[in-house]
Amino acid sequence: MNWTLARRTQAMNPSVIREILKVTEKPGIISFAGGLPAPDTFPVEALREATDQVLSRDGRAALQYAASEGFGPLREAVAAQLRAQGMGVDADQVLITSGSQQALDLVGKVLIDAGSRVLVESPTYLGALQAFAPMEPSFAAVPSDAEGPDPEALHRLATAGTVPARLAYLLPNFQNPSGRTLSATRRDELVAVAQRAGLPLVEDNPYGDLWFDAPPPPPLAARWPEGCLYLGSFSKVLAPGLRLGYVVAPRAVFPKLLQAKQAADLHTPGFNQRIVARLLDDGFLERHVPNIRARYRAQCAAMLAALEREMAGLDVRWSAPEGGMFLWLRLSAGLDATALLPEAVRAGVAYVPGAAFFAEAPDARTLRLSFVTASVEQIDRGIAALANVVRCARAQSPDAPAAAALDTGG
Amino acid sequence: MNWTLARRTQAMNPSVIREILKVTEKPGIISFAGGLPAPDTFPVEALREATDQVLSRDGRAALQYAASEGFGPLREAVAAQLRAQGMGVDADQVLITSGSQQALDLVGKVLIDAGSRVLVESPTYLGALQAFAPMEPSFAAVPSDAEGPDPEALHRLATAGTVPARLAYLLPNFQNPSGRTLSATRRDELVAVAQRAGLPLVEDNPYGDLWFDAPPPPPLAARWPEGCLYLGSFSKVLAPGLRLGYVVAPRAVFPKLLQAKQAADLHTPGFNQRIVARLLDDGFLERHVPNIRARYRAQCAAMLAALEREMAGLDVRWSAPEGGMFLWLRLSAGLDATALLPEAVRAGVAYVPGAAFFAEAPDARTLRLSFVTASVEQIDRGIAALANVVRCARAQSPDAPAAAALDTGG
Repeated sequence: MNWTLARRTQAMNPSVIREILKVTEKPGIISFAGGLPAPDTFPVEALREATDQVLSRDGRAALQYAASEGFGPLREAVAAQLRAQGMGVDADQVLITSGSQQALDLVGKVLIDAGSRVLVESPTYLGALQAFAPMEPSFAAVPSDAEGPDPEALHRLATAGTVPARLAYLLPNFQNPSGRTLSATRRDELVAVAQRAGLPLVEDNPYGDLWFDAPPPPPLAARWPEGCLYLGSFSKVLAPGLRLGYVVAPRAVFPKLLQAKQAADLHTPGFNQRIVARLLDDGFLERHVPNIRARYRAQCAAMLAALEREMAGLDVRWSAPEGGMFLWLRLSAGLDATALLPEAVRAGVAYVPGAAFFAEAPDARTLRLSFVTASVEQIDRGIAALANVVRCARAQSPDAPAAAALDTGG
Repeated sequence: MNWTLARRTQAMNPSVIREILKVTEKPGIISFAGGLPAPDTFPVEALREATDQVLSRDGRAALQYAASEGFGPLREAVAAQLRAQGMGVDADQVLITSGSQQALDLVGKVLIDAGSRVLVESPTYLGALQAFAPMEPSFAAVPSDAEGPDPEALHRLATAGTVPARLAYLLPNFQNPSGRTLSATRRDELVAVAQRAGLPLVEDNPYGDLWFDAPPPPPLAARWPEGCLYLGSFSKVLAPGLRLGYVVAPRAVFPKLLQAKQAADLHTPGFNQRIVARLLDDGFLERHVPNIRARYRAQCAAMLAALEREMAGLDVRWSAPEGGMFLWLRLSAGLDATALLPEAVRAGVAYVPGAAFFAEAPDARTLRLSFVTASVEQIDRGIAALANVVRCARAQSPDAPAAAALDTGG
């Protein structure tokens, strides 16, 4: 049998990260490669209680087919949460999705034609590239400075060519992979430029609640509600295995997203939605999320301290995130994070090379480190091992200054 | 703000049925319109126990991100179940999806290009039309006789035109909406024709376990594993609110379906998958499903008896399904089920007009009745009310023979 596959399948590929994780998930490896939240933070007991309550009180309704928009009280709770962050949101603008990954799929279906220009950050979240890819867009990477995507470059790319860009995808808080957060000023500038160009913004915010010292500035969608789609998730503040996210859409787009949702899987499990609605109703998140913040903050501090200690003199640079799960590292000149990974794994430490996160012009020197699943002791050992790998590679690299010279000078 | 939507959104529409259900779900209406399983059959207590066990034993794993293919033991259990029905299936050919609706979405993404010819039954499952529509196929309805789709017509449509049809979508058991089941002979003939034409078959089987007196013949996929995609679901045998289904694919197609799944929502909730895996492991379905069968069988018999009693002499024809949830009815000549619906609702009874289920040449006289959510007493009253509506309409219809004449002769 000779199967004819749709043309779009040529744009669909196995996840590079998934392949990397297979190699790195060996026993004894200290892995900073995963993108998973720390499982010790999952509130197993609270979920068991909420599940019991849902099944006792509304068991049959929770197990029946349900509305494609989502469970009313959950939509209300999400809207209330976002209003508290400065967004003007009604519950009927909230579409509950099967994780925010599905929101990306629906957004792609509704906004992207084959050949549509889609602007992304550089680097950007790999899962968004994968979600949009089946719609066959042409990706363009917006150049960045230290503050994030460059507003003038965004405007240039939005209006270049004969047809305007279809959307810009932005992850303003503690970005995956770079850990970067956009300042309030940069948010204002980007929104002003998007308004001027009539460029829809897709704002993805899975990590915004995981701040360390202070909440990030209000979302882009608070500044320009009618031009933004806003994506959120319960994966990082409760548990990803429930697969619960949402997209908030202006009334001009909501009905088409809803039709796409209905065609895609009818609705997100009502069982899961009711469990989470019960936890929200109970104020559980207000008690729970501060614990995650404190934990991740301590682990991030440990990783930053280890990097300071171990990478001295190795010409390595890294970000200092103000929240989230990831830290972004740039190796010495002449080193390639993909080429170095097998050596790192042999030395007992794993990361994700940064190249996969670039839609254009990958920076081979970059890599992503997750600080949330390893213990402080593992972080210390893992960063020390990584520093050793870098030191040896520099000693062998013709492009880098001799390691010995730097070590004594560092 | 002026949003530019993707071209495919023009092919996406609000569900007709959904709109109808809004009208018909008024208090006091006896509704045969829904497509929902009977909620009294949902095993709330068994699910509570299974959930408790999953959270106690593997809580953190159940709540973490998981493999896009699905939870291993669930894939194994599905494969074992299908092998018992005569299919040669390995667990690694089973992709767990968020309901079988999502399997349709993934199949559409992987097999359908804009303009691809897609063959469907006449009538066919509306949800499949909706799932495929965003990929912008050109639907062609295969003419049927009393036994189901006509094999020679299938061959003609598969090979007509310059480009072969991309797939044929078939629902062989207790079809939604017609209630029809394909005989073993017809299955052989359709598979032989598809093999000859190199036409992939997408076999959807959400109702196969709900047989009344005897299981349906083995699936098409058992006859031609390398040319069929086989879709199944736990929605009708356990509960739809868990959103668990699957697609079994030959090795030539599986990797692309998996990539599409990963891009669509990363994975189906591991929490839900483990709950159902536990129930299957425990042999729960073998004890549970016979109760659903007995119940639906009795309700179907009650509806058939009511139709015999009430529709006598009204020139109405209906199917006698051997399982499933639906019965298909064809009104007297000159009557239009869509036009008649408001009158039926006024008389306190609701159904879904059949026209929505046709990709081409809708038969306006047809309508779908669900026999699973109404009680026997409601079935009796509802069918009597429906017969009255038909009787009055016939009296007013110029095309139909006078009702009085038929009543005395019936």
